[in-house]
This record gives sequence, C-alpha cells and structure tokens, in this order.
Amino acid sequence: MKKVGVVGIGHTKFGNLSDYELVDIMAYASLNAMEDAGIAGGIDQVVVGNMGAGILNHQTGIESALVSTLNLEPASAELVSNGPASGSSAFKVGYMAIASGMADVVLVTAGEQMRRVTGWEATDFVATLSHPQAEYPYGLTLAAFGGIFLRAYMERYGLTERQLSMIAVKDHENAAKNPFAHVQLPVTLEAIADTRDAPVINPYVAEPLRMYHICPVSDGAASVVLCSLDAAQRFKKKPVPVAGIGSATDTHCLHSRKDPLDLKAVRLSAERAYKMAGVGPGDISFAELHDAFIILELCLAEEVGFFKKGEAIKAVEAGETRPEGRLPINPSGGLKAKGHPVGASGLSQIHELVKQLRGEAEEGRQVKNPKYGMAVNFGGFGNNVVTTILAQPR
Amino acid sequence: MKKVGVVGIGHTKFGNLSDYELVDIMAYASLNAMEDAGIAGGIDQVVVGNMGAGILNHQTGIESALVSTLNLEPASAELVSNGPASGSSAFKVGYMAIASGMADVVLVTAGEQMRRVTGWEATDFVATLSHPQAEYPYGLTLAAFGGIFLRAYMERYGLTERQLSMIAVKDHENAAKNPFAHVQLPVTLEAIADTRDAPVINPYVAEPLRMYHICPVSDGAASVVLCSLDAAQRFKKKPVPVAGIGSATDTHCLHSRKDPLDLKAVRLSAERAYKMAGVGPGDISFAELHDAFIILELCLAEEVGFFKKGEAIKAVEAGETRPEGRLPINPSGGLKAKGHPVGASGLSQIHELVKQLRGEAEEGRQVKNPKYGMAVNFGGFGNNVVTTILAQPR
Repeated sequence: MKKVGVVGIGHTKFGNLSDYELVDIMAYASLNAMEDAGIAGGIDQVVVGNMGAGILNHQTGIESALVSTLNLEPASAELVSNGPASGSSAFKVGYMAIASGMADVVLVTAGEQMRRVTGWEATDFVATLSHPQAEYPYGLTLAAFGGIFLRAYMERYGLTERQLSMIAVKDHENAAKNPFAHVQLPVTLEAIADTRDAPVINPYVAEPLRMYHICPVSDGAASVVLCSLDAAQRFKKKPVPVAGIGSATDTHCLHSRKDPLDLKAVRLSAERAYKMAGVGPGDISFAELHDAFIILELCLAEEVGFFKKGEAIKAVEAGETRPEGRLPINPSGGLKAKGHPVGASGLSQIHELVKQLRGEAEEGRQVKNPKYGMAVNFGGFGNNVVTTILAQPR
Repeated sequence: MKKVGVVGIGHTKFGNLSDYELVDIMAYASLNAMEDAGIAGGIDQVVVGNMGAGILNHQTGIESALVSTLNLEPASAELVSNGPASGSSAFKVGYMAIASGMADVVLVTAGEQMRRVTGWEATDFVATLSHPQAEYPYGLTLAAFGGIFLRAYMERYGLTERQLSMIAVKDHENAAKNPFAHVQLPVTLEAIADTRDAPVINPYVAEPLRMYHICPVSDGAASVVLCSLDAAQRFKKKPVPVAGIGSATDTHCLHSRKDPLDLKAVRLSAERAYKMAGVGPGDISFAELHDAFIILELCLAEEVGFFKKGEAIKAVEAGETRPEGRLPINPSGGLKAKGHPVGASGLSQIHELVKQLRGEAEEGRQVKNPKYGMAVNFGGFGNNVVTTILAQPR
C-alpha cells in the first residue's frame, strides 16, 4: 500500500456563514488548502464530507458542484457521509483512494451549513440520525441523549457540574486564541458554574446538561490535500504522514447497549488506529476529542486509554489537558467553542492536528514539539466513530 | 494493491416498496448478497450507496442503521453519495477499502425509496442535483434536460421518434424476463410509436421525449459482497474479478459545455476503466448503460467506443443489442424498464454484470459466454460518471 501524507490544509471561520452558499464555503476552504500545498490544480479525486445538504440546503450532488466551482474537472468526485463523523470518514476515503492506487493527489473538503434554518430545525436535523422508529418519533434530540449520558456518568463517578464546567473554561480559553473558532469568548468558572448566576447565564438544556456544556450550531468547512508520500516533494510543505485510521460501529440505538457509558466503538476505533500506526496511548502528544457535549471529552479520553474510567477529570483539574500541559486536549477549543458544523468537524479536527504537528498553531495554544496527534470523531451517539492519528512531518 | 472480486450479490424487486422502511429494503438485499456468498457475518466494512434519504426519508446515518439492523457491529460503515451514480461510487469505495488494505470483506449496499413521496416531489428531489442558482430555481427538471438533449441529438443525427422507441421495445422485452424489474410489461413498437395512438398511450413529457422513453420512479436496493481475491476461496462461489473502475466529472451546468451532446465524463470514465482493466471497447461482451432517458443508451454506447457517433441506432435496428445479439445492451431491461431507484441503480447494474458473467441470468436474456461486462452509471446530467468493468469468474 502507498503511504499517504497531508500536504495542504484550509479552513473557514466557523460561525454564522448563512450569507454564503454551502458550495462556496467549501470552495473557500478548498482553495485555502490548495494554496497551502502550493498547487492550483492537478487533483485526481475530490472527496466531499457532508451530513445534511439534502435536508438543510435542499441540494444533492454537491461533490460535482464543488469540482465545477473549483474548475477541477475531470477529477473524480464522491460525497461521503457518516453523521457528525462525516469529515473523518471523508478523510478515510481520501486516504484509501491514494493507498489503493486509484489516485495520486486528493482534495478532501468537508462542510456544513446549519444556520440558514431555525434552531429547532437544526436540532431536528441532527436528530434524524437516531433510529427512525425507536427514537426519532418520540422526540429524542441529541441534547437529550447528552443529558441522559451525563446524568449516568455523574451518578457512577461522582462528577459535579462545577468540575464539568472546568472543561468549558479551558475550551473557551483555547478557542479565544483560534481565529477560526465560532465562540472566541473566554468564560470564567464563576460565571458559568456559580450556583446563583448559572440558572440565568448557563441554563439547563437537558438537565443536568447546561448551555455552556454544549457546542454551538455552526456553519463552516475544512479542507486538506492528500498525496502519496512518494510524490510529496512537489508540494510546498513537508507532508504530515497519516499514521493510523480506525473506525468502528456500535448499536444504532443507545438503549440496545448493556452499559450506555461503555463507548465500545470509540475504544475499538482507537485500538484499530493505534494498531495501524504501531503506537499506543502513551505515544500521543495531544488530541482533538469530539466534545459536542463536554462530558464526551472525558469519556473519549478514558475510552482511548489516556486515563482510567472516571479519572479524566483529575487531569483537567490539574491543568494537564491545557495546551502547555502533559496531554493537551482540544487545543483548538474543541467542538464546544471552536464550533460544530456537523459534517465538517472531523476534518476540522484533522486540520488542527496538522497545524499543531507543523508547529503553526497560534501562541498560547501551540503544543510543544508534538510527535503524534489524535482525532476522535464521534458519529451518531457513539454508533459510528472514526479515529485518526497523524505523525510529525518528516 | 490487492486484487478484488465480487463473491455475493443480492437484489430486491424494483417497484413500489413504500410499505417497507428504507433500511429494511437495504437489509433485504444485503442478506441476499451474504447468503449468496455463503456468509452470515465477518464483514469488516459496510458501504452504503444512497442519494436522497435526507430529502426523501428525512433520515441520516442510514449506514449505521443498516449495520445495526444486520447485527454487523463493529464493522466500519460509510455512506457514499454521487447523485444517480451513488451505487457505482459506493462500489468504487468498497473496492478501494480492500485494495488499500483497510478491509478484507466489504458489503456494499445501495438503495433508494422514491415512492413514499408524490411524483412531483420525486421530480423535484432529482432536480436538486442541478445547479442551485443557475438551474434549479428556474424549474429545470431532469426530464427537461432529457428533452433538450434528445432534440439536439435528433437534429444532428436525424434520429426519429420511431427509431428511439425501438430501444424501449427491447428494454421492456428484457425486463419482462427479469424477476427484479419494476415494469414487466412487453410493449410493441406499434403501440408506443404509432402516430395515431402515441399521444394517448405514450404522451410527451418534455417534447420530443415521451413517457415510454423515460425510466419509472422506483424503490429498491442492490447489494454485493467484495473480498480480496487472495481470500476468495472461503466463499461459496467463484469471485467475479473487478477488472477496471474509472470515474470522471464534467461541468456542473449543462449550458457550460461547448457541445451539450459531447459527454466528456462518459468518455473519460470509460477510458480510465479500460486502461485499468487493460482492455478496449472490442473486448466488452455486453453492457449495462444508464438509460434513465433511452436516448442515453445510444449516446453512452457511442461515447464508450462501441459505435461511431450517430450510428448506435443502426445496431439497435439490426438487433445487435438484444441479448442474443453481437453486443447486448441492457439485458436487465435497463433503467428504462427494470426501474431507477436513483442511488441504487449503479449497483444494480453491477449486480447484473455479475449475474451475467456467472451465467445465472434468466432464459431469453442470458448473454452467451461473456468475457467482460461493463456498467456505465451516469450521475447528474453527465457531470459525474462512473464506469465499472468486471471479468468472467475464474
């Protein structure tokens, strides 16, 4: 199999981009990535990651639309979807295109536009990934899943609301230094966790889950250029090697799992990625973990083997997961504060891995000399998870 | 790269399956394919092909839903979309998963459910693949594209309506022998092309395109099991080798093409598939060509090199494209009569290639000792085309 590396990255600001067309948002990130790679064409294959253009934009065929907008015909083009893990799945397909010999240079671009519809419509849209008979018709939203999950975790491990809010404080601090972040507003623990003010500033969305424990609804796109490592010298920057990719599914319905706190697909996707990369949890320098609900930052960090079950919060309290800490988590601000345009988030995580591994992150959030970066992209409510490990450029 | 073969195929009847759930339709075809391969599990990767579950079914995440319905966790799962070429694109991604070493056994299942919505909604849905600013808002439907295209072809090459209708007669005859076909009703040339009765029996949809020149709106699914040729001996049947896959894009808008009759992406996707397979048009024993509008059967046959431009109709008139002819085209009945559940059609074409290459097609439509079968799956209005060549099992 051919070895694969990332030679270009692009990103739009995350936030409200409802003035623009979805394809134009994707084109912006794509041109950014191509410029970073030092190319204006020569792409064999375009892979678009997207979850909801059908429902949110009443559009299909955006893979062809993007190729045409970028004048990349006759490049092959496919769209890859996997709920909120669409971005990583698109990256995986881009990887496979090169590793299989079907393409030499691949552009992977993932985007989502969620702010042209109302908040309720966006919530309903995300809920369409739940079971169409057993979950969706009963009004279960993803925030409801998050609330159920958080309550179970709190009861089992004794996590407090105040401890949980510390993750939000860290994420907001990182996002404030990330020019692409949707929410660039630092918050204090006092403001969001104080028992007197919290009901007003940080109300419950799905008790015990509060507003500052949840990602915003965002528009945005990220993009990468991939190539075979053999051919990497023709690009402007050193390639960031793809070390490992692993993905795994779990039951579609949360209620089918014996222990809802046991995120098997997370664990297995990470094991597969570690195996392919030939590394273990101790080799990872920093990670981007899918914290659409910040409780997931803890659970994912535990499932992938960084900490024992129930103990990740100690590392947060000790500052170990801050950019200058022992194991920085979500130096980008995470989905929590950087934003979560669902189909784009996985590729945005990978964008951040590349930026950090190249040493190009902004001051105050650059991880010191990272060797391996890991992204865990959580699809469904843990029913389809993709883990990606990238290595330091060489 | 690992060599890849098809070791199992499954198919639902095409037609009105609106009583069933989309995922259950896909599960039916999948179980069929697994049974044909002689396996009940052991799938590493599931690839779902679908164009419109978001718009038509208000569902996302059907890749995870299918895995769970089939109890295939923790298999990896992705959804691949590419308009009406989604089925072939999903097959291509399944191929890449094995060829790249990311998976050993892959289930590719493609399905679409278009009959739960009204005819107008189905027409609108398909039109969402057109340009969102330059085409869609002006009411251009795919049938309108077909009408414009047919008129241009008739004017340039002198094709008559009566000649065109001969293709429908052949397709309906083949479909009548195909148990999976949506329309199993043979028609005579007199009934649909007679100038006195045609206005009633075969009215114009988009002049000069008449009803019998267009595919029906169908529900259905097709499925295949792929594996590395090295590991093929553990399956029940001999593998059908994947010889070549090629795909290419053309401008998103039809009006951006200098000559709208020049289907560059068809030509190029075929050239790429021929190159990978190491064969040429003369080596192909039979073909499934994407005849959503039957004029496309002629144009595609010409673009891939079977006939000179404007001359394919002579072969139809001489009976050469019938199952017993020199170069059978659409022995399945084609999209025209077998039906066209958009996201499923490409994989259904591949299903037919396997069936024919194994010698398992029904009497009266089995091609005699075919060496290579070719499927051309036409996405958008020719803006994203995938060609697949399979070889005789060995």
